[in-house]
Amino acid sequence: MIAHVYIELKKGVADPEGENTKKALQLLGFDGVRDVRTIKVFRIELDELDEDQGKRKVEEMCEKLLANPVIHNYRIEIG
Amino acid sequence: MIAHVYIELKKGVADPEGENTKKALQLLGFDGVRDVRTIKVFRIELDELDEDQGKRKVEEMCEKLLANPVIHNYRIEIG
Repeated sequence: MIAHVYIELKKGVADPEGENTKKALQLLGFDGVRDVRTIKVFRIELDELDEDQGKRKVEEMCEKLLANPVIHNYRIEIG
Repeated sequence: MIAHVYIELKKGVADPEGENTKKALQLLGFDGVRDVRTIKVFRIELDELDEDQGKRKVEEMCEKLLANPVIHNYRIEIG
């Protein structure tokens, strides 16, 4: 089973990498770049076959390791 | 217009962050984690309204700044 975990910074949390990427794009002459935000994705390959059980497992991984609930929102996609 | 740029390491390119995440998950007691790979996503908000033109612009951004063709594959999603 493949799970993709999308980890995003919550609204209002500074994203310096996104900010700097925006500045760099502007310096390179790209006009009209209003905003750049970064999202981190983990592609996890699991032995688990049951979709619901796999999703629960990955949710636990997010809570224990992958995401920081103070600053992150996360979303899991299976398959 | 919103564009999402997915930047992945090419097959065969080492992903130390993914490797270490896998090890950490195993140490935390998660069984059956076969592989973990990381993907970087840029969410770019553009003033551009024309989809084709926006996509071409973002492709140029990838070539000039966001992706390294030696080690990365990238994919752009509009909307």
